[in-house]
Amino acid sequence: MSISVAVLGASGYAGGETLRLLDTHPAFEIAYLGAHSQAGRPLTEVHPNLNLSGGVSTLGPNDSDSVPDDVEVVFLGLPHGASARIGATLAGRGKKVVDLGSDYRMDTPARYEEAYGEPHPLPAELEKWVYGLPELFGSRLDGASCVAAPGCYPTAALLAVVPLLERGLISAEHLVINALSGVSGAGRALREDLLFGSVAEGVRAYKVAEHRHRPEIEMGIALATQQEVAVVFTPHLIPMQRGMLDDCTAPLTHPGTTRQGLLDALREAYADQPFVDVIDQPPQSRWAVGSNRALISAFVDEKTQKAIVISAIDNLVKGAAGQAIQCANIICGLDQTTGLPLSGWSP
Amino acid sequence: MSISVAVLGASGYAGGETLRLLDTHPAFEIAYLGAHSQAGRPLTEVHPNLNLSGGVSTLGPNDSDSVPDDVEVVFLGLPHGASARIGATLAGRGKKVVDLGSDYRMDTPARYEEAYGEPHPLPAELEKWVYGLPELFGSRLDGASCVAAPGCYPTAALLAVVPLLERGLISAEHLVINALSGVSGAGRALREDLLFGSVAEGVRAYKVAEHRHRPEIEMGIALATQQEVAVVFTPHLIPMQRGMLDDCTAPLTHPGTTRQGLLDALREAYADQPFVDVIDQPPQSRWAVGSNRALISAFVDEKTQKAIVISAIDNLVKGAAGQAIQCANIICGLDQTTGLPLSGWSP
Amino acid sequence: MSISVAVLGASGYAGGETLRLLDTHPAFEIAYLGAHSQAGRPLTEVHPNLNLSGGVSTLGPNDSDSVPDDVEVVFLGLPHGASARIGATLAGRGKKVVDLGSDYRMDTPARYEEAYGEPHPLPAELEKWVYGLPELFGSRLDGASCVAAPGCYPTAALLAVVPLLERGLISAEHLVINALSGVSGAGRALREDLLFGSVAEGVRAYKVAEHRHRPEIEMGIALATQQEVAVVFTPHLIPMQRGMLDDCTAPLTHPGTTRQGLLDALREAYADQPFVDVIDQPPQSRWAVGSNRALISAFVDEKTQKAIVISAIDNLVKGAAGQAIQCANIICGLDQTTGLPLSGWSP
Amino acid sequence: MSISVAVLGASGYAGGETLRLLDTHPAFEIAYLGAHSQAGRPLTEVHPNLNLSGGVSTLGPNDSDSVPDDVEVVFLGLPHGASARIGATLAGRGKKVVDLGSDYRMDTPARYEEAYGEPHPLPAELEKWVYGLPELFGSRLDGASCVAAPGCYPTAALLAVVPLLERGLISAEHLVINALSGVSGAGRALREDLLFGSVAEGVRAYKVAEHRHRPEIEMGIALATQQEVAVVFTPHLIPMQRGMLDDCTAPLTHPGTTRQGLLDALREAYADQPFVDVIDQPPQSRWAVGSNRALISAFVDEKTQKAIVISAIDNLVKGAAGQAIQCANIICGLDQTTGLPLSGWSP
Repeated sequence: MSISVAVLGASGYAGGETLRLLDTHPAFEIAYLGAHSQAGRPLTEVHPNLNLSGGVSTLGPNDSDSVPDDVEVVFLGLPHGASARIGATLAGRGKKVVDLGSDYRMDTPARYEEAYGEPHPLPAELEKWVYGLPELFGSRLDGASCVAAPGCYPTAALLAVVPLLERGLISAEHLVINALSGVSGAGRALREDLLFGSVAEGVRAYKVAEHRHRPEIEMGIALATQQEVAVVFTPHLIPMQRGMLDDCTAPLTHPGTTRQGLLDALREAYADQPFVDVIDQPPQSRWAVGSNRALISAFVDEKTQKAIVISAIDNLVKGAAGQAIQCANIICGLDQTTGLPLSGWSP
Repeated sequence: MSISVAVLGASGYAGGETLRLLDTHPAFEIAYLGAHSQAGRPLTEVHPNLNLSGGVSTLGPNDSDSVPDDVEVVFLGLPHGASARIGATLAGRGKKVVDLGSDYRMDTPARYEEAYGEPHPLPAELEKWVYGLPELFGSRLDGASCVAAPGCYPTAALLAVVPLLERGLISAEHLVINALSGVSGAGRALREDLLFGSVAEGVRAYKVAEHRHRPEIEMGIALATQQEVAVVFTPHLIPMQRGMLDDCTAPLTHPGTTRQGLLDALREAYADQPFVDVIDQPPQSRWAVGSNRALISAFVDEKTQKAIVISAIDNLVKGAAGQAIQCANIICGLDQTTGLPLSGWSP
Repeated sequence: MSISVAVLGASGYAGGETLRLLDTHPAFEIAYLGAHSQAGRPLTEVHPNLNLSGGVSTLGPNDSDSVPDDVEVVFLGLPHGASARIGATLAGRGKKVVDLGSDYRMDTPARYEEAYGEPHPLPAELEKWVYGLPELFGSRLDGASCVAAPGCYPTAALLAVVPLLERGLISAEHLVINALSGVSGAGRALREDLLFGSVAEGVRAYKVAEHRHRPEIEMGIALATQQEVAVVFTPHLIPMQRGMLDDCTAPLTHPGTTRQGLLDALREAYADQPFVDVIDQPPQSRWAVGSNRALISAFVDEKTQKAIVISAIDNLVKGAAGQAIQCANIICGLDQTTGLPLSGWSP
Repeated sequence: MSISVAVLGASGYAGGETLRLLDTHPAFEIAYLGAHSQAGRPLTEVHPNLNLSGGVSTLGPNDSDSVPDDVEVVFLGLPHGASARIGATLAGRGKKVVDLGSDYRMDTPARYEEAYGEPHPLPAELEKWVYGLPELFGSRLDGASCVAAPGCYPTAALLAVVPLLERGLISAEHLVINALSGVSGAGRALREDLLFGSVAEGVRAYKVAEHRHRPEIEMGIALATQQEVAVVFTPHLIPMQRGMLDDCTAPLTHPGTTRQGLLDALREAYADQPFVDVIDQPPQSRWAVGSNRALISAFVDEKTQKAIVISAIDNLVKGAAGQAIQCANIICGLDQTTGLPLSGWSP
């Protein structure tokens, strides 16, 4: 079986990683690649690391009309604001669409406006899209054809805290999330603060108290627990290419809950999930890099009666391209692991 | 004026940085260098980056007897547990001693045991030592001759939160400290997890809920506010050589406190402190590296009514060697800035 | 078809990379893993990045007897000196053996002694082994069952210069090879000079004029051209995990040879080779990392009439694990590209 | 004694490093700072790592008229082509000028055109400037008031080979220079190939056979030996912020010359030079970073009868800002080491 797919926004880091994974995917076949400013250029110039086995070697424009009729699934790797209309158009043409971007992640127009500071351009479309975090919201993907793949930070954070919140083991009040990301998460934009000279040998927090992934995390918690909560979310850029660590600190609900109790709850929650491993040590981002896995561990601080839950992912795989393909697998009726790496590379 | 000084434990990273700074210090003159396993080796083999102008070119043993009589100040850069006795002996010989290590940081035997899991070997000595964080506890240094220089993490954390706690602007309950350190903080030990292959391109938390700097932070808060508190402290190693960032998240005490209110309080607290800069942007560790400065900023998360206070230092300068020299300056009657860099290097 | 394979020396970097690639290989199935000091430990502790789909989850000892009878191919990732005897024993048991190490790379006992400073322990065995660089010496692999996979530096250097030497375009006299390697090439040994603190933000040459890969490069040239030559080879460690660049500078044989002439010769030589790409720009190591490809370009310095040929590989893939699997594919009658990545990852 | 100085082009990496060193210089006092696009901005925004003790806190424009009359020395850290006119104007006003840029490095208009591909804009001015590499051409600085500080690559290369060429120990024919630079050498420009995502974990050669520092190296050799030579020069960017290594491979002139012979010659040449250390091991760039030192060692490849001479510097200190200040010290009659670091930092 071969399913024809297209990738729009193929020139960025997430787009490139999507191509790399799709190229060895046994069921999907790349039929079209689109880009914005890089349209017209050979793929090997834009991604010299890629040497695709298939026949598509040049980037076309990022428009819906250029996507061939026989394409069944379209992946969108576009900047914020750029996928709303094209996603709607492609859905209207009957395509399955998996959006790696942020335009359709929010469940309501109000949440979208809270996160992005402006009204959604096509609010009536929002309800057609499902939030594609299969380990937590897998049933939402049944019969879906439009999927908004979560952001990298929310993926790591929600996988860490949702099972414990659902089981009433921790409280979302005073939940503090500190998150550390490799620089590829910031994309390929030409900014002075992303130069090697600005990044190497340094670390910084950014968008403190105002990052748009905070409302997305709050939405994920609300979807899972039907509780509207407020969390503190402080993201940081650290001097590495890939990888992400989310530290989630929250009060234990019941005094005396043990570390083992937290680990048991997480293991129960993810018993059937091939991409989530609950481990005994603090997870290192390196152990996840290159794979579609999330590694999670939990700790109890006895003195303060707080839980500390730490999760690690590859921001470009489980946090972007890999999760998008996982969702595409599901909505195409394939096993969710098809074509996705369970092992990462090291060193 | 020339003051003769010695450095024991000169072969480690903190010891080497102490030598580098002492060599260009206008008042201190290096008279003796001690080491443990490196004793007998030329300094240029142990620290090929150093080319000292003075006459000491070989490392001697790490013992008190070898320290010449005319030495006035001894810096100790020894591993945990190694400075208690030698520090006491040197003090008994009438030397001024500045310990970069951890043996004399705690104010009470009980706190020492909480932090290090065993009784202090010389509990009666503890009261002779003062905790050397001049910006917060400068008056303690008046007339002192034995100083325990604080750990790097507590330096960054206490500078960030103490002024706000003292002014009642934030609450220590639910205070969560996430800290990020360059790898030099782990020292020069031969451990597989410190290999380039294990560190580069990765990030990890370590000693979650059990790091010994947590009781030191709690002590610092108690010294300043006379309140015994419990904090969550989660340290991380990130792939850079130097630099440290501490994120401190705590509830605002009074609803409606603004970011400006926090910044004003911090600026008031440090108005006369040449080594602390309160800035408007999130501080980057790079901006502090190479200098003895701490850069601090504060933010308010409106939705959760939390303060987020972020501080950046060079873990080997303000977090170790620089702070030790700053304390030595003070107890020798010099201006505290003597010989210490106010600017860092970049890139 | 499933071919049962074993990996001895599975705990090192090259061993781990071999496992990662074998796990997704469609024909090979891992039946046994051996290690030295790590024997008895679960694989997930030794390589936390790996999550193998197969059934082998624990490392056994590194001995021939433990390799099951139905294993057809054994990969050896052992330190220098450790594979001579075990390789001979496994060959005696009728196994196909692919040695990633250095014990059987040399064609003669004399060359071995030149490279390693001592006689070969089993000189009579040497002639049973072939040097496994398929793009240059593919015919040697016909009917072979014992393969010594080349070193990483020789792989990059020989791919760059052999076609030009064979065609008489450059002269091996005054051939100067400067090579740059990521640190994974030095392996996982606990050495102070491999600590993050020693490696990051620095570069060094090592084993100047005495690296053991120099005789291997000279052998490769002799195998291809029947000329015994002497080359200058200066390797360097640079602060990155993976990747390798070899710069080969040699006099043009015929005045007036153009850059295009060199590129044409290289393209002709590798026209049918899926893993070698001759490109117009200076190859960056990043473009090869993660794949089994070698990227090569050539330049002419008009003023000195020298050729500068630059090649880039992933030292752990084409320079070790990937090339070993490529050789195993060939001696097992599979297509040489089976299970090997043609695209690398970036960033 | 206080000598008033100005820095034009103060916003770049070399300019910033010049400020850092000038701020602690005992004789020079910063009186004016100029910039191009950053003119008008506070210094702390442009270089957040700097916290200058002096009174200048804002960048003015990069023009000669803005330089106050009482300024004695002007440092120019301008892009290629930008210092020719302004340097001439400042010289006409009687200022001492030290140009960190490339406009006045060449000795003749022909050499300039060879290097830069266009005629010098003010060829008559060239003869007023001296090439400021004090260890090799110190006598040229006697009475000079206009100095062109050498490029970083030529500094490292010339210090390595000139003494051996002058003594006839090596031949410039077949001299091959491979050079490795940290990324700060490429400056602060906004280029995609300088993003962290493009640089980290990779290495590349660039401007192969066409880098403008090649003619400068050839000029340095000609100035020292009166011989016009042609060398191969291949520069590389490696993933570190600072530091530079130049490998120089050249035939021995006399068969049988030993390594000791080369080291003795180098030590003789630099016996009185405080900033050059001839060492026994291969120099690591880290050992020079932060200092104004050059570390040099030499090796003999017996089999090919080649010398391999390796030098390490900090590209921003001895390769730029430090060397400029060293030259300024000399032309102002100060000791050449005044205010310059002899030790570097590590890690």
